Amino acid sequence: MPRPTGHGPGYEARRREIIRIAAELFSRNGYAATGVAELCQATDLAKGALYHYIGSKQALLAEIHGAVMTPLLAAAERISKLPIAPELRLRLLSQMLLEVIEHRLDYIRVVEHEIDRLAGENRKRMLHERRRFEDMVTELHAEAIRDGTFRELDPRLCMLQFFNMHNYTFQWLRPGRWSSAQLAEQYCTTLFRGHAVDSNRFASLEEQLGTFRASYTGESLSGLGDFEEVATAS
Amino acid sequence: MPRPTGHGPGYEARRREIIRIAAELFSRNGYAATGVAELCQATDLAKGALYHYIGSKQALLAEIHGAVMTPLLAAAERISKLPIAPELRLRLLSQMLLEVIEHRLDYIRVVEHEIDRLAGENRKRMLHERRRFEDMVTELHAEAIRDGTFRELDPRLCMLQFFNMHNYTFQWLRPGRWSSAQLAEQYCTTLFRGHAVDSNRFASLEEQLGTFRASYTGESLSGLGDFEEVATAS
Repeated sequence: MPRPTGHGPGYEARRREIIRIAAELFSRNGYAATGVAELCQATDLAKGALYHYIGSKQALLAEIHGAVMTPLLAAAERISKLPIAPELRLRLLSQMLLEVIEHRLDYIRVVEHEIDRLAGENRKRMLHERRRFEDMVTELHAEAIRDGTFRELDPRLCMLQFFNMHNYTFQWLRPGRWSSAQLAEQYCTTLFRGHAVDSNRFASLEEQLGTFRASYTGESLSGLGDFEEVATAS
Repeated sequence: MPRPTGHGPGYEARRREIIRIAAELFSRNGYAATGVAELCQATDLAKGALYHYIGSKQALLAEIHGAVMTPLLAAAERISKLPIAPELRLRLLSQMLLEVIEHRLDYIRVVEHEIDRLAGENRKRMLHERRRFEDMVTELHAEAIRDGTFRELDPRLCMLQFFNMHNYTFQWLRPGRWSSAQLAEQYCTTLFRGHAVDSNRFASLEEQLGTFRASYTGESLSGLGDFEEVATAS
């Protein structure tokens, strides 16, 4: 059977490369300041060819958001359903989120800085995806409050503190100084002791996590594998 | 004596108004996408007149940064020297910072999103001011570690957690839901219990703060009064 026009074997790889180059340009110079001409030059494509792969500059911005959110949400769904204590699931979410921030800084910068440039359906989908992620984290905090691990706090305010702590990391994180694993350990120790009924309860959090990791045989808990999958998926 | 040309009594008020309008435009549409023509239209000034007040679009961006950082630093200097426990000084800094974020959202959005658009001397000064603020917060954490209130942590990583928690707030804060005072209480309770040697130590933090506020007769501890002063200063 003939392939659909223009969707040859290299189509998705080329598309993924265009998204990566756009993330780099938008991250460095801003979305508004990056012209289609500049995108054409950086990708070595004529305008018509660029549109063939991507559709529009706006669609490109939506793709960058999706390239972060789709694997993040997939990994978060897996983690939030694991049969372990809510604080351990939050600890795994923390590390997964920080891994994505650490390894996809360009994408994250665009997602954080250019969110208001998304419009219409793209904006609606983006807000929906963020809300889903927020709801998962809120629910894990509610669970830890119900089971008496955390104090009687507003689970939404716990969720906002969780994302404050993690999401701002992209503003200062530079490769080499602190790893995502070290930051996840520090952030979660602060947050969980901060929320805990009894702060000594979390003295063994990292040990519990190690025991779980050693016994776990399920799918990857990192968002990075999926990041590549999503970026290459047709 | 004649006034210097163009620096009549309305000069500084007009200048302040131009900075405010620019912050609003840059916040909504981005720095790169906001043209000088648009600034002229929004301020009802011809290009020559705009340059007379401000100099350049780049200078305008530097003014917006300064309008946030100058009063913030002044208030932070006052607070960090108060003769009270380091955690109480951090608690006051927290509230002051959140007040500025709450009341100057447009300016803060520009400062956070367009930081990489600053260049040369402006960039150098901006980095220097941020570093001074960071150093004050690092030193307060080091003090709380030295006096045995906080655990043996890396004071720089404590500082980064403090700013993560506070600075990301602008991304979701909308007027009416949570006040800066409520957020400061929640953030500091989480962070300090998180860092504490003994988390019960902070059960009376808000009470201690109330006692201090009732007895305090010094200069304002908010950055907002100074904000207006700086914006109107010649």
